[in-house]
Amino acid sequence: MNIELDATDGSARAGVVRTSRGLLRTPVFMPVGTRGAVRGLSSADLEDLDVQVVLANTYHLMLRPGPEIVAKLGGLHGFMDWSGHVLTDSGGFQIFSLEPNIDEDGAVFRSTYDGSTHRLTPESAVAHQGLLGADIQMVLDVCARLPAPRTEIVDAMERTARWAERGRAAFLDPSVATPAGQAQFGIVQGGVDPDLRAQSAARTVDVGFDGYAIGGLSVGEPRAEMVPALEAATAQLPVDQPRYLMGVGDPAGLVEGVANGVDMFDCVLPSRLARHGTLLTSTGRLNLRNARWADDAGPIDEKCSCAVCGRWSKGYLRHLLAVHELTAARLLTLHNLSWLLEFTRGMRAAIVAGTFQDFRTEVLTRWG
Amino acid sequence: MNIELDATDGSARAGVVRTSRGLLRTPVFMPVGTRGAVRGLSSADLEDLDVQVVLANTYHLMLRPGPEIVAKLGGLHGFMDWSGHVLTDSGGFQIFSLEPNIDEDGAVFRSTYDGSTHRLTPESAVAHQGLLGADIQMVLDVCARLPAPRTEIVDAMERTARWAERGRAAFLDPSVATPAGQAQFGIVQGGVDPDLRAQSAARTVDVGFDGYAIGGLSVGEPRAEMVPALEAATAQLPVDQPRYLMGVGDPAGLVEGVANGVDMFDCVLPSRLARHGTLLTSTGRLNLRNARWADDAGPIDEKCSCAVCGRWSKGYLRHLLAVHELTAARLLTLHNLSWLLEFTRGMRAAIVAGTFQDFRTEVLTRWG
Repeated sequence: MNIELDATDGSARAGVVRTSRGLLRTPVFMPVGTRGAVRGLSSADLEDLDVQVVLANTYHLMLRPGPEIVAKLGGLHGFMDWSGHVLTDSGGFQIFSLEPNIDEDGAVFRSTYDGSTHRLTPESAVAHQGLLGADIQMVLDVCARLPAPRTEIVDAMERTARWAERGRAAFLDPSVATPAGQAQFGIVQGGVDPDLRAQSAARTVDVGFDGYAIGGLSVGEPRAEMVPALEAATAQLPVDQPRYLMGVGDPAGLVEGVANGVDMFDCVLPSRLARHGTLLTSTGRLNLRNARWADDAGPIDEKCSCAVCGRWSKGYLRHLLAVHELTAARLLTLHNLSWLLEFTRGMRAAIVAGTFQDFRTEVLTRWG
Repeated sequence: MNIELDATDGSARAGVVRTSRGLLRTPVFMPVGTRGAVRGLSSADLEDLDVQVVLANTYHLMLRPGPEIVAKLGGLHGFMDWSGHVLTDSGGFQIFSLEPNIDEDGAVFRSTYDGSTHRLTPESAVAHQGLLGADIQMVLDVCARLPAPRTEIVDAMERTARWAERGRAAFLDPSVATPAGQAQFGIVQGGVDPDLRAQSAARTVDVGFDGYAIGGLSVGEPRAEMVPALEAATAQLPVDQPRYLMGVGDPAGLVEGVANGVDMFDCVLPSRLARHGTLLTSTGRLNLRNARWADDAGPIDEKCSCAVCGRWSKGYLRHLLAVHELTAARLLTLHNLSWLLEFTRGMRAAIVAGTFQDFRTEVLTRWG
């Protein structure tokens, strides 16, 4: 998997990734469809939003309904009836939050659904994701929870490198079924230490993947610590392959990621914020729970071209939110996702126009 | 408000009601948008479903956000951005389930939202619904909870008749603001006693409304008790005005209502069933929670032309339901409503074709 660069502006890149499914224009934001659906939305909604790629969570789908059932129903594309791209994570991130038993072979964890015990290894992560059938799968990594002692971060990074070799070997093993055209990304770890990040990136590139993700950042550390670690990692990554910063989806985080040469992002933030009534707008965050909006006939954002802003008032949407109508979660998620996707397209346009540095300054002033 | 009958088949009627907003083709099923939205859906969805008229609940809307705010935001049509018809209930049905203090003037009840005390009278019900701005408002009635002693049912019926006069007078009072073109329906009570139903119907017709509803049925009594009460009521109602059986929305109840000359129906059943995974299909009810559907690639109903059946499998929808995804509630509600609206159009077509009795027999065999 390669990325062709249409334009660059500093380290920021506007690119195109050609896959067997079609084109991915970058920078790209991937909404999170944890269990095979973005919360409250359907694949028809994702089409209306011009979503290019959805992320689905292997941890959840391996437990419910199970990768075999997803495979039987046509993989995630058939299951969701979605002809856009899909990326699956490895399941590692969720599992590490469950405090699993980890040894060199893999991780043993308990299901949050029924308490049953499961083992995930670099090899089984490949097999599960093969069955889920996404366009891009992620290697199983080890994510130290920050802040952590340096030895712990080093150990996680070292094991990540060893697991990367095993994961890649399993992916390339012809006896392990992965769909034709499926790609696999490696993951860089190393905490907020630029040296460890550079080292992790170099070792991951040595293994050789179709693209490279930066994991374990944006987990609560200050942006001033995140950016040098990110810079150190991307400096080691091949220019002609896609780069993905995991778990970042706030406007300032996106613009800093792009400024440091990242192409792909995912985050639950826009949909989670929406369900709590916090909306992304051209003038900053808007808290729709505020009583001042109760009789407001205007849209969430005068400058937004989404279907929700074109049709319903802040007063109506605030009411639906206040009385816990399901419709509120859906409509506000549609707005936030639409807004963030348009924001991401705006970054791409600014890179192509050579005005990305101005765009970045403006975003950091409003959202930083 | 008049109804023109396109066709009749026995007592069943296929009609057209012309309003300032457009046409209502009957029999018609009205989805319930309790708080200004059918749960999980938007007015855009209602348009896609070819919904003709939505019911909204005065009780809920008078408490949240309040009729003044709805009025300020353009009445229910502006609030919801919905150009189809709207009918509001009087608020009475919900209030009587809260065991209010009732006297001849009205009912004092406590809000389920914050415990605050409110008074609803036949006159204030008119004023609230005037502000909500629906196309059809309902008079405030007194609904005895069945089974009840005969004296209680008679008392409720008598008070309903006195309140009907007050409600109609308030509606016709030029000093009370009601939107141009708004209609008002009376409500027939009388429990399951055909004599009381006939008496209540005659007295309601004496007051003179734009249409007539039958309230207080389908509240748990056997169908064999409901039907004679319904027949006794409709026999007293003018042929050229619309008739509305409140709270009925199961296929057998609809077909029996239509067979007894009813034109309009509302019910939360299709959306409530959907949220619990019970689906209406051409072969009867389907419980999507059943494990047998886990890997089923087929649609909910092979014969259904709805957007959900056209696109997603039972396996996928069952998964979304099992893991409590909001998307499940939405998609299953879309199916059930679409199915029931199509069923209602099927009743109309059968009346026009003169085959309604066969249709009725088939429905009662499957759903009775």
